[in-house]
Amino acid sequence: MTVLLHFIDVFGTFVFALSGATVGVRHRFDLFGVFVLAFVTAVGGGCVRDLCLGATPPAGLINVEYLVCVIIAIMLITFFQKIVFSFEKPALFFDALGLGFFAAFGANKAYVHTHEIFFSILMGCISAVGGGCIRDILTGRSPVILTKEIYASAALIGAGIQILGSSGVIPPQYSIWLAIGSCTAIRMVSLRYNITLKTITNKYLD
Amino acid sequence: MTVLLHFIDVFGTFVFALSGATVGVRHRFDLFGVFVLAFVTAVGGGCVRDLCLGATPPAGLINVEYLVCVIIAIMLITFFQKIVFSFEKPALFFDALGLGFFAAFGANKAYVHTHEIFFSILMGCISAVGGGCIRDILTGRSPVILTKEIYASAALIGAGIQILGSSGVIPPQYSIWLAIGSCTAIRMVSLRYNITLKTITNKYLD
Amino acid sequence: MTVLLHFIDVFGTFVFALSGATVGVRHRFDLFGVFVLAFVTAVGGGCVRDLCLGATPPAGLINVEYLVCVIIAIMLITFFQKIVFSFEKPALFFDALGLGFFAAFGANKAYVHTHEIFFSILMGCISAVGGGCIRDILTGRSPVILTKEIYASAALIGAGIQILGSSGVIPPQYSIWLAIGSCTAIRMVSLRYNITLKTITNKYLD
Repeated sequence: MTVLLHFIDVFGTFVFALSGATVGVRHRFDLFGVFVLAFVTAVGGGCVRDLCLGATPPAGLINVEYLVCVIIAIMLITFFQKIVFSFEKPALFFDALGLGFFAAFGANKAYVHTHEIFFSILMGCISAVGGGCIRDILTGRSPVILTKEIYASAALIGAGIQILGSSGVIPPQYSIWLAIGSCTAIRMVSLRYNITLKTITNKYLD
Repeated sequence: MTVLLHFIDVFGTFVFALSGATVGVRHRFDLFGVFVLAFVTAVGGGCVRDLCLGATPPAGLINVEYLVCVIIAIMLITFFQKIVFSFEKPALFFDALGLGFFAAFGANKAYVHTHEIFFSILMGCISAVGGGCIRDILTGRSPVILTKEIYASAALIGAGIQILGSSGVIPPQYSIWLAIGSCTAIRMVSLRYNITLKTITNKYLD
Repeated sequence: MTVLLHFIDVFGTFVFALSGATVGVRHRFDLFGVFVLAFVTAVGGGCVRDLCLGATPPAGLINVEYLVCVIIAIMLITFFQKIVFSFEKPALFFDALGLGFFAAFGANKAYVHTHEIFFSILMGCISAVGGGCIRDILTGRSPVILTKEIYASAALIGAGIQILGSSGVIPPQYSIWLAIGSCTAIRMVSLRYNITLKTITNKYLD
């Protein structure tokens, strides 16, 4: 099981890095810019979480595996662009899987540090979506997760389920899988049926 | 007096959250996006301050009262939009009051941690205006406080007066009220008479 | 030698502050906004580094010398704009010198804290270019270092050379000068001959 979790961690990081690198290439960033976007998307959320926990240096910045993921992602996007884009559909699935893993892992790490329920759920969500937010800010636009699609909400639910396990309400050995499964399922179903969160009606503004 | 300070804290947070939620609705963010903007505007400045102080986890992220403020703000903007906007004038006053409180409170917290005068004034200012800056960056524009209106400058003065109290130059039991009063007064007078900070003449640029 | 290093530190900070202040004036920010941009450009990178190291409060925020640099930069841009811009060419050289110093200094500080090679090189680079990135984000655009010119790459190489010294591969008393020299040389040569980093070809996107 630990091996499978480690695989999800690394593969999720890789898919996140690939998404960052793609955005970088699309914005005509140079090689360094593409590296920064890939790296930030992959590890940015975990870094913000670790800074908030006071767990310095942030784990994502000293993990050489993550760096290798980023480098492979950049090489793929440079030399095998066509192949990469033919895997767009499966990439969405692995992205959702990574989302669930990072949410659950981040929430658990925060809970172990602080035993604060609300804070830990928040940290789980930030671990999962923070990198994408920084990526969007670096490309000069509003984070896409704030405006459309069920993405951060799926991470919130995954983080919440994990905290049920971390705090002993459900057995911890199941909660990580339940969290990853729920988050991935919610994300994939919302994509499949094009479900979005309600926008608050705006009658008196502008 | 402590009760009154606590009231200003909570009510200031609530008004900040309302301002963030309003911006979110105006930008057509979804429910999650509106929550993020409201929450970030309310607690973002204090979080940056606490990260700079090494006081982790940031106090704003584990304070359930603040979370309740944010949720009430979002419910109001969802269901009672018209009423909310009819209170625009009083909201400006409570915003100014919150500004003064956060500046004084943040400056004092930083001074207690570090006994650095310049750093503490800076931290007070960041506590008060940092949340609004992050809100603006998340909506893809330059922070409004950098370009117009006396807002951050009022916070700087409030923070400076508080440090006079924290460092014993004036009695600490008065300084918090003097700081809040000065900051609120400067802000309200500048709004009333449309006073702005000088823009540096730009003769040789562009 | 220490005196010379200190001079490079202060003068580099001053040139960085001047670059931030110039951007602020160009964007018609008010006096407070220009101060924020100048200050953030000068000390922002070091602050991010110190937060990642858990070295709070960040050194740049309690260093009064840096504050003086920022204030002088703002006074120069206010009262002697024409003179400032007549020094544009030398400013590029001192900017490159500062870049090298901050990269080497930051990398060494991170290495002393953590003994992590990759992390320290990253921190050196962030020390050198982070302030400029935050400046660009505050003005609502993509960081310029991500899209063109050899700038961050020069900092990365400077940081890498410094780590060779910090970890004892080359004598530490030489590495700082070798790092600053290489970084400055790469930057100046790339400017002189208009060398840029490769952009990844973008055949299947958009």
